Amino acid sequence: MQLARVIGTVVTTRKDEQLESRTLLLVQPLTAGREPAGRPIVAVDAVGAGVGEDVFFVRGKEASFPFYPSEPPVDAGIVGIVDRWDTD
Amino acid sequence: MQLARVIGTVVTTRKDEQLESRTLLLVQPLTAGREPAGRPIVAVDAVGAGVGEDVFFVRGKEASFPFYPSEPPVDAGIVGIVDRWDTD
Amino acid sequence: MQLARVIGTVVTTRKDEQLESRTLLLVQPLTAGREPAGRPIVAVDAVGAGVGEDVFFVRGKEASFPFYPSEPPVDAGIVGIVDRWDTD
Amino acid sequence: MQLARVIGTVVTTRKDEQLESRTLLLVQPLTAGREPAGRPIVAVDAVGAGVGEDVFFVRGKEASFPFYPSEPPVDAGIVGIVDRWDTD
Amino acid sequence: MQLARVIGTVVTTRKDEQLESRTLLLVQPLTAGREPAGRPIVAVDAVGAGVGEDVFFVRGKEASFPFYPSEPPVDAGIVGIVDRWDTD
Repeated sequence: MQLARVIGTVVTTRKDEQLESRTLLLVQPLTAGREPAGRPIVAVDAVGAGVGEDVFFVRGKEASFPFYPSEPPVDAGIVGIVDRWDTD
Repeated sequence: MQLARVIGTVVTTRKDEQLESRTLLLVQPLTAGREPAGRPIVAVDAVGAGVGEDVFFVRGKEASFPFYPSEPPVDAGIVGIVDRWDTD
Repeated sequence: MQLARVIGTVVTTRKDEQLESRTLLLVQPLTAGREPAGRPIVAVDAVGAGVGEDVFFVRGKEASFPFYPSEPPVDAGIVGIVDRWDTD
Repeated sequence: MQLARVIGTVVTTRKDEQLESRTLLLVQPLTAGREPAGRPIVAVDAVGAGVGEDVFFVRGKEASFPFYPSEPPVDAGIVGIVDRWDTD
Repeated sequence: MQLARVIGTVVTTRKDEQLESRTLLLVQPLTAGREPAGRPIVAVDAVGAGVGEDVFFVRGKEASFPFYPSEPPVDAGIVGIVDRWDTD
């Protein structure tokens, strides 16, 4: 999973029907030092994250697991809100 | 999923039979600032996207979900047309 | 999927038995401007491609779909020969 | 799989319920020469690794296999602690 | 799949039980010109490869196919030893 910050929301009207009623957020991957790294990803939200929060997201089909038995065609999903991380 | 712009079409006559009648588009991944990032991808279209439109696409086997029970051998698929995205 | 050019063949005698009788080609990913990008990939051929042809290939388990019910351990497969692509 | 060093822990209270009671560690991928390479990853721990230990981790759905029949939505998991690696 | 050279072995005592008795090798991805490219990967060996040999490896769950019905949590596996590759 990757550390990221929620930086925005994605508005879309025409989309696959399995994505109806799903929240799509724009997340920016972060380094351990909280610097932006790489380009933003559109992730489906499974935990009620909001803009400005630090989260971690999972890639691949696993991103759809929280919505089982629905199987939305997603490859990135926010599965946890990070309180903090500690490095030595 | 990744933000991208549809920049072209791909014409192919010899292909896997499961790809017959599928629309293959060339999409350019974008940064949050709408700049091109990385190289273009060939994506199957599940939502009727057209050249010039901003979309988001999914990677992996998930790209084939909108065509179920058909299982075309695809690893990238357009699953939504983006009206806009907002970043703070 | 990615655009690529077939640049060579791979000769291998000791290999997983599910790969026996499969054609393995070396493909060079391309940019939309037909420039080489990134390092070559070994891809299994599902459409009869030859050296010098432009193709697109799929990554992941999907690369094995054209050989069903056989399930060769492959993660890249040529699924179409590209006549041309048009960008605006 | 990738070589990595465990560099920290991730504290998270709101998360997908399948992640409850799982240990999430921050791991830094390494080169063969033990230099950091790329950005840290959040990995679920399947072997009791601790901060400072060298490990290897697996990516993708495979990261959930050690927890079967539970299927936590994870895409990176520590599956071995490395005593040493030898290169010629 | 990717071309690579076997550059070392990985010694690990504490690991997921499905990895017991599996050979783990350190492989260095190569360019078509046989130059090292990117960082080494830990791969499970399915074909009896040795240090110094050129191989190709598969990524993802496919890496576990040669061990079926065992399903070791691996994401990279050597599936062929390369005699040579020819590019035009």
